[in-house]
Amino acid sequence: MLMRGLKQGRCFLIRLDHSVDIVKQISDFLDKEKIEAAALWAIGALKGARIAYYDQTSHEYKTISIDEPMELVSFIGNATLLNGKPFLHAHVSLAFSDGKVVGGHLEAGLVFAAEVLLQELIGEPLIREHDSTTGLYLWGQQ
Amino acid sequence: MLMRGLKQGRCFLIRLDHSVDIVKQISDFLDKEKIEAAALWAIGALKGARIAYYDQTSHEYKTISIDEPMELVSFIGNATLLNGKPFLHAHVSLAFSDGKVVGGHLEAGLVFAAEVLLQELIGEPLIREHDSTTGLYLWGQQ
Amino acid sequence: MLMRGLKQGRCFLIRLDHSVDIVKQISDFLDKEKIEAAALWAIGALKGARIAYYDQTSHEYKTISIDEPMELVSFIGNATLLNGKPFLHAHVSLAFSDGKVVGGHLEAGLVFAAEVLLQELIGEPLIREHDSTTGLYLWGQQ
Repeated sequence: MLMRGLKQGRCFLIRLDHSVDIVKQISDFLDKEKIEAAALWAIGALKGARIAYYDQTSHEYKTISIDEPMELVSFIGNATLLNGKPFLHAHVSLAFSDGKVVGGHLEAGLVFAAEVLLQELIGEPLIREHDSTTGLYLWGQQ
Repeated sequence: MLMRGLKQGRCFLIRLDHSVDIVKQISDFLDKEKIEAAALWAIGALKGARIAYYDQTSHEYKTISIDEPMELVSFIGNATLLNGKPFLHAHVSLAFSDGKVVGGHLEAGLVFAAEVLLQELIGEPLIREHDSTTGLYLWGQQ
Repeated sequence: MLMRGLKQGRCFLIRLDHSVDIVKQISDFLDKEKIEAAALWAIGALKGARIAYYDQTSHEYKTISIDEPMELVSFIGNATLLNGKPFLHAHVSLAFSDGKVVGGHLEAGLVFAAEVLLQELIGEPLIREHDSTTGLYLWGQQ
């Protein structure tokens, strides 16, 4: 287990822009505000999305594209550093008009409306490095 | 994008009352404690619930009523001001006895048991205003 | 309603170990760090899991075992005291390769990869006591 104690920095409530990708908007905000670590949550609605399931054997993401309007039921994420830049990692669950839910790793999502809580975390940076056991970029021991 | 920097205020863990509506209990708490902005999370179980899906074309909510006991798997919400009063906006996912999940915008839910984390946020108020693009009451530029 | 005002203590981002139970890892961390109250969130992937649905009539948990790799889409939890020790209560939603989601009360889950945010909460302890109305161990009036 790797654990890092951090201090709370700035806290933001953010209304994302309509018809712009959710990952891009948050990533641009992290860059602009020079946020090296954060926890994030969001709710709202998307016009469409790409989520992914990680195949734990082949070590490849399988993308699931959804081209219809959905509620953004849950978005839980974090931001840490990858290749020297803030990197958003978020998982979402999305509901269709009948309430049925799909979920996974968020790749992209066109915002209808979205409200984000971003809690900056301050301290020694957490840096993502390739992990051969999982094939993922996980927080490494610096 | 509209963003508002806020400070952390009071933090509460709350055990909600049995057989009382979850939205009413939280809304009453916000009123009583004069909380103008907050982030909220909850887990627990509900005896029944009304959730909703927002039709992005007709700009109307479609309500889904569920009259059976469910796990409250996720509840992510925020509180800001609407018409001068604290207003709760929350999305939930709910699981049936076979584990299947439905989710959406929370309208009402009869509490079996529920544990809430409420983080007050302090600063210039965020005020919901009608947004013609989406038909929703979103945080406006004051 | 029972509510407890708490102060924010330490804040941790944690990378859990591969192939070790998620509940055990977090519980061991709470013990080791002597954390009496906390809020927790996580995302990641599990190799398998046991979740549960609480039967509100019989007051018994029905366990659902899932022996396949899943995305950990949402994990929302809290830690408070039960029998003098920190006790984790968490609900999760989990996604299969087609994006379909199941969810419930987390009993166990074998970690493929998992990233946890733990916010310690400091103050008068919240203690779980048997509640005859629900059959659950809920926060009591001390």
